[in-house]
Amino acid sequence: MLDLDYRNCLSTAVGDHGLDPASVAAGSEWAKRVADLTASLESTRNTGWERWRGLPFDPVKSQHINDVLAIAERCQGRFDNMVVLGIGGSALGNIALQSALNPSTYNLLPASERRGCPRVFVVDNVDPAYFGSVLDYCRSSDPGLKRTLFNVISKSGETCETASQFMTVRQMMIDAVGRDQHADHFVIITDPEKGTMRRICDENGYTTLPVPEGVGGRFSVLSPVGLFSAAMAGIDIHMLLEGAAAMDARCSKADLADNPAAMLATLLHRLGNERDKDVHVMMPYANSLYLMADWYRQLWAESLGKRHDKAGREVFAGYTPVKALGTTDQHSQVQLYREGPNDKVFCFLEVGTFGAQDLTIPTGLGVEPLAYLEGASFSRLLNAEKRATEFAFVESQRPNLTIRFPQVDAAHIGQFIALWEITTAYVGLMLGIDAYDQPAVETGKVATFGLMGRAGYEEWKQKVDERLGA
Amino acid sequence: MLDLDYRNCLSTAVGDHGLDPASVAAGSEWAKRVADLTASLESTRNTGWERWRGLPFDPVKSQHINDVLAIAERCQGRFDNMVVLGIGGSALGNIALQSALNPSTYNLLPASERRGCPRVFVVDNVDPAYFGSVLDYCRSSDPGLKRTLFNVISKSGETCETASQFMTVRQMMIDAVGRDQHADHFVIITDPEKGTMRRICDENGYTTLPVPEGVGGRFSVLSPVGLFSAAMAGIDIHMLLEGAAAMDARCSKADLADNPAAMLATLLHRLGNERDKDVHVMMPYANSLYLMADWYRQLWAESLGKRHDKAGREVFAGYTPVKALGTTDQHSQVQLYREGPNDKVFCFLEVGTFGAQDLTIPTGLGVEPLAYLEGASFSRLLNAEKRATEFAFVESQRPNLTIRFPQVDAAHIGQFIALWEITTAYVGLMLGIDAYDQPAVETGKVATFGLMGRAGYEEWKQKVDERLGA
Repeated sequence: MLDLDYRNCLSTAVGDHGLDPASVAAGSEWAKRVADLTASLESTRNTGWERWRGLPFDPVKSQHINDVLAIAERCQGRFDNMVVLGIGGSALGNIALQSALNPSTYNLLPASERRGCPRVFVVDNVDPAYFGSVLDYCRSSDPGLKRTLFNVISKSGETCETASQFMTVRQMMIDAVGRDQHADHFVIITDPEKGTMRRICDENGYTTLPVPEGVGGRFSVLSPVGLFSAAMAGIDIHMLLEGAAAMDARCSKADLADNPAAMLATLLHRLGNERDKDVHVMMPYANSLYLMADWYRQLWAESLGKRHDKAGREVFAGYTPVKALGTTDQHSQVQLYREGPNDKVFCFLEVGTFGAQDLTIPTGLGVEPLAYLEGASFSRLLNAEKRATEFAFVESQRPNLTIRFPQVDAAHIGQFIALWEITTAYVGLMLGIDAYDQPAVETGKVATFGLMGRAGYEEWKQKVDERLGA
Repeated sequence: MLDLDYRNCLSTAVGDHGLDPASVAAGSEWAKRVADLTASLESTRNTGWERWRGLPFDPVKSQHINDVLAIAERCQGRFDNMVVLGIGGSALGNIALQSALNPSTYNLLPASERRGCPRVFVVDNVDPAYFGSVLDYCRSSDPGLKRTLFNVISKSGETCETASQFMTVRQMMIDAVGRDQHADHFVIITDPEKGTMRRICDENGYTTLPVPEGVGGRFSVLSPVGLFSAAMAGIDIHMLLEGAAAMDARCSKADLADNPAAMLATLLHRLGNERDKDVHVMMPYANSLYLMADWYRQLWAESLGKRHDKAGREVFAGYTPVKALGTTDQHSQVQLYREGPNDKVFCFLEVGTFGAQDLTIPTGLGVEPLAYLEGASFSRLLNAEKRATEFAFVESQRPNLTIRFPQVDAAHIGQFIALWEITTAYVGLMLGIDAYDQPAVETGKVATFGLMGRAGYEEWKQKVDERLGA
């Protein structure tokens, strides 16, 4: 299991910048309050927008796994390239799973080393140079689009980024393989019953998987939204969900000390609100976990960044999530982290073993100042640097915690996902805000409609031009 | 030229969260103060740690370009893969240039589409899985290491990450091609006169290029540190330096309104210090510029994050740089950016034209809610979304500015680099701190030595274990 070490968030380690250990101890007022929150979360489990809690459990789990694996099996061997088109919650989980569980060189490897799985591109932007370069590659790599699958993810079908990408690749595929055959190159994840994309799928005969009811985008990675591209790339989705279920069980315990999500929420919320640590830095010491931090960034920012609490009071709540990478950012951000404003909590991610992937620094260079490195493993060096950085942060009274992965595999990634999702739900309750809405993105959407000339939104173009100048 | 639009940083746009326009107008006290700083920077130009100012100008420029191009020419056609080994300032500029000026699929392309240039991997970490996957790829891709070049960048040779990588690939290359031939596979950028790596190069007969005297790592991208890998990947390094020189000329003007670095420094420093906007978000609306933000993050954090000012007072200065990507992060961070704490300044990067890389959304889907997208270009959609986001930020009184690239090419990237380097120098003066040291990284270094068993550092292992527990 993942391990949470939070000693360096306490005043015993970092003085006034940490929390009094007694204030989070068993029997404390806070521990009692958290037990109430745990009971509250149990009472709302699998209801409303907390239906993501049910994803790692039957019957939802098996239904999704069976549907995903059936389609993945039909696709397997037929495609060299898979392009995932989605944005936000329809992309960040997919990217995180690929980068955590496949090698950094995955797309460069010959098919045999990809176990016959396709290359994976997740194109979560409408930048023409970026999107175009991926399409150019898919078209020109022999035999081109005939061996390319598009996995389009959009609940409504009206998200303009994904819609415009879909319109483009649909026409491209029709031109390449003909209208009758083009549907074989699409697997679309969308609302199972209603909406624009649903209608398009029904009319075109596309294969579909569901975005489950009551599961918001940023909580959807363990639904078909994240599972299909993972399964196509050879990731063990059973283990992913089993890991999530195991963490869910731990995070359902009433005792604060036994419940890592409740403790993580306690530390980050209280260090934010009582110690002005409003910047939350996630700093994995593992490249494979670096893009998990982007998934976390969305979860944390979009769930907790809210102007109003549930009582309607103006609170401007939220914490700014930042991603950093060890050891790399020791040479970029650590100077600021130790000597700049003391306004951050650091969450290190540490990996116990890299197994057969570890490397050893060879002997034989024979240069005295480097002799201490000879014969050491890279994992030892990596984790020594992590420990040294942790030490340096404590020396500067910068609160920090460590989540330890025994190793990076599907089960532990599943645990990690569940841990942060449940932690987010706790912090939402602590802040008294709605963790499941995103009212502030609406303005940009309608303003875009206005600027793009969508009928009915003319007033918004006028508003933008008046405000910003034509 | 790049254009700086800062209207949305003023109180006329964002109320009390912005600066009074009169306070930055010509003739204001502030404008006079800035003119003094400009004179001060002219007086220290090309001296001490400001010798980076000379990199885009002769005689330094031509000397570096000639040396770099001569070695690149000797290497050209001989290598399929180039692996850059460096960290911090010896990697972030290299990564930024590659991602800004080569397609996202560059390493996947056949050699003909890479104009005969090698694939480029910049491995700036000691994570064994990450480093190992790149080495595995280089070894297994036919004909493997015989066609691989290692570009090792380390001024002293004692940076433990780069040293351990170098020791590993050196032995690997000796095993692959023999001791006599292995030197042909290394180009090493290091101190031209002294230090551990200098000695290693002299003893092994490696080809070298200089890390110039008086140029710190985070200011070194326009020296051979950044230029060699750029040249190897077909980037026009002449244009890069010409762009930087042109921006330097603009940023030498005494009038605040005519000097974009002085104005950018003014806005970010004063919004930080007078309006509590301590988080500085760089948000390009272009994937190609996203990793430039990592280069900026180091420059900004390591230069300005300082506990003491030059008078020795404890100031805990600095701003937290954050990178975001439009439109992608509209679906991840914008909820927080509009409704969370108003503690940020947003720096949008906007691209005028994508030229032949632009794409058009096809007509023919015939679905009413998406009809407004038909026939539009992706660049129009991308920039409409940027404008809509800018509008939404102003509606929420969030100060923001835009740096406009007419297009993304080597000349404009050179301008961008010079703009931010000179801006950093200004803010260093405004804060009264030393922008060129990094005292806080020392503790982690010596603690790592202790934990790795380096002779003479035993006490540090003991200190770490006492502090953190064994």
